[in-house]
Amino acid sequence: MNTITSLDQMVQHLCNSGVNRRIAVAVAEDENTISALIEAKEKGFASPILIGNKNKIEEALILENAKPESFHIIDIPDHTLAAKEAVRMVRNDEADVLMKGLIGTDKFLRAVLDKEEGLLPPKAVMTYVCALELPKYDKLLFVSDTAVIPYPDLKQKIAMVNYTVQMTKKFGIENPKVALIGASEKVNDSFHYCTDYTQICKMVDRGQIPKCTIDGPLDVFLACDKESVKIKGVPTPINGEADALIFPSLESANSFYKGLMLFGGGELAGLIQGTIKPVVVMSRSESQKSKFYCVALSCLMA
Amino acid sequence: MNTITSLDQMVQHLCNSGVNRRIAVAVAEDENTISALIEAKEKGFASPILIGNKNKIEEALILENAKPESFHIIDIPDHTLAAKEAVRMVRNDEADVLMKGLIGTDKFLRAVLDKEEGLLPPKAVMTYVCALELPKYDKLLFVSDTAVIPYPDLKQKIAMVNYTVQMTKKFGIENPKVALIGASEKVNDSFHYCTDYTQICKMVDRGQIPKCTIDGPLDVFLACDKESVKIKGVPTPINGEADALIFPSLESANSFYKGLMLFGGGELAGLIQGTIKPVVVMSRSESQKSKFYCVALSCLMA
Repeated sequence: MNTITSLDQMVQHLCNSGVNRRIAVAVAEDENTISALIEAKEKGFASPILIGNKNKIEEALILENAKPESFHIIDIPDHTLAAKEAVRMVRNDEADVLMKGLIGTDKFLRAVLDKEEGLLPPKAVMTYVCALELPKYDKLLFVSDTAVIPYPDLKQKIAMVNYTVQMTKKFGIENPKVALIGASEKVNDSFHYCTDYTQICKMVDRGQIPKCTIDGPLDVFLACDKESVKIKGVPTPINGEADALIFPSLESANSFYKGLMLFGGGELAGLIQGTIKPVVVMSRSESQKSKFYCVALSCLMA
Repeated sequence: MNTITSLDQMVQHLCNSGVNRRIAVAVAEDENTISALIEAKEKGFASPILIGNKNKIEEALILENAKPESFHIIDIPDHTLAAKEAVRMVRNDEADVLMKGLIGTDKFLRAVLDKEEGLLPPKAVMTYVCALELPKYDKLLFVSDTAVIPYPDLKQKIAMVNYTVQMTKKFGIENPKVALIGASEKVNDSFHYCTDYTQICKMVDRGQIPKCTIDGPLDVFLACDKESVKIKGVPTPINGEADALIFPSLESANSFYKGLMLFGGGELAGLIQGTIKPVVVMSRSESQKSKFYCVALSCLMA
């Protein structure tokens, strides 16, 4: 397949591939969620299953000029029960993707993380990967973890690498360049991520982590700017052309992507990884467009 | 004074104010450093004192079309001794600003940090503040710490706030809005910065830190985007109009500003703070323009 280098190409690829994913939506009562789902349904790659207060769901659909009768709606007004039913459907293969609607993130994640009836396998690491599109970068930039793990340890960092590499492969990137981000390229034990990064690099050498081109620590300049690599003369196989950036902390990944969304004209599609099926959790302050892209990404990954 | 909202306004303000600062430059042998200094000298706000190998300094000046005879040059070819002399001049009030040229950062900082003959008062915190100019933000954004302290503790965070507030006042911002940055606005002890942030907020309330409008934790959206504040409904006096962002770690501040330099069309001026006089340390991969702005900022702060 051709490499997908933009979010619109991702949508186009989905449309061409003929897939159609069933998305179970917990508390599908807000217009933002609904409008992203209507667009995905119209494009033909998603079949939403809207769970929540039937009256409110129908109102939201009508407000967005959609016909309630053409949607699969399940009337469960209680938020906790709605989330439980959505998770159950995904577990039992009655749906391919789980999505959060107008329900508190804590309540929603409690259903996802339930040990008996949730979606996370025992000992699995749950993390977040997003594909960032930037007008000044000529391909997508995959970033992890922007939303879930505050301070990933070695095991969690390895999981972040694995999930990110898995995602890049779905975009047709056979040998992704993964940069492990720090404040500088120097190995220095004042920075606690260095010990994890050097171990991960060696694990890739030894075949303990799926094949990718990985290096770190690298700063954002050496990861994403060829000119900086030349000026600084640091030999790195990433060579300023990173496909993916793994950050050492949530505060760094989160500030990085939010800065670029605000000031770099960024767009994104993001997803929870580690669960048995894709889980879409979107923040209210994310753009309409980003919400649609998140739904599309979940259908690509399902 | 009028508030300075761009780096060019800062330069204009300097030119109008009639100041002229003596800048002692350790190992002033590279064209990048030299060209920034020539521009500052031509604008009239700086008098460079070039310390290093006289032949190499003269060659670099000629390459940049400047006349060596109109510059104050001190011939000390040994790097360590050149740095020592530059620091001595600043200590003895023979210069107002110290600047790093073509010398290793470690060697340079060793002279700055020397307990007997350096520039850092006992127990003072050395940190880095930079003024970031972004096409999509209608004023300057002061960011700390992008370069020095890996993981600032409470005392260091307080110093970062103080130095940043001091800098904003030089830009005519009487009551700067300072956002303490995290991944989210929620206070949550999984994020170690929360305890420091809440203490700092209360210290400002109690008058233990110079007057500014401060709040945290806040994410980058709530700090810099009014729309996000509205959508999320989080009451904060920062209100999406932050003048300054204090980050919880070097990895987060560094990735944030580097992302915006690469993908957000950013320009910057940065400075070491905490020393008895301003110290300019520039990375080789910083742009020509940024280097000139760093020199100008040091003259404003001297």
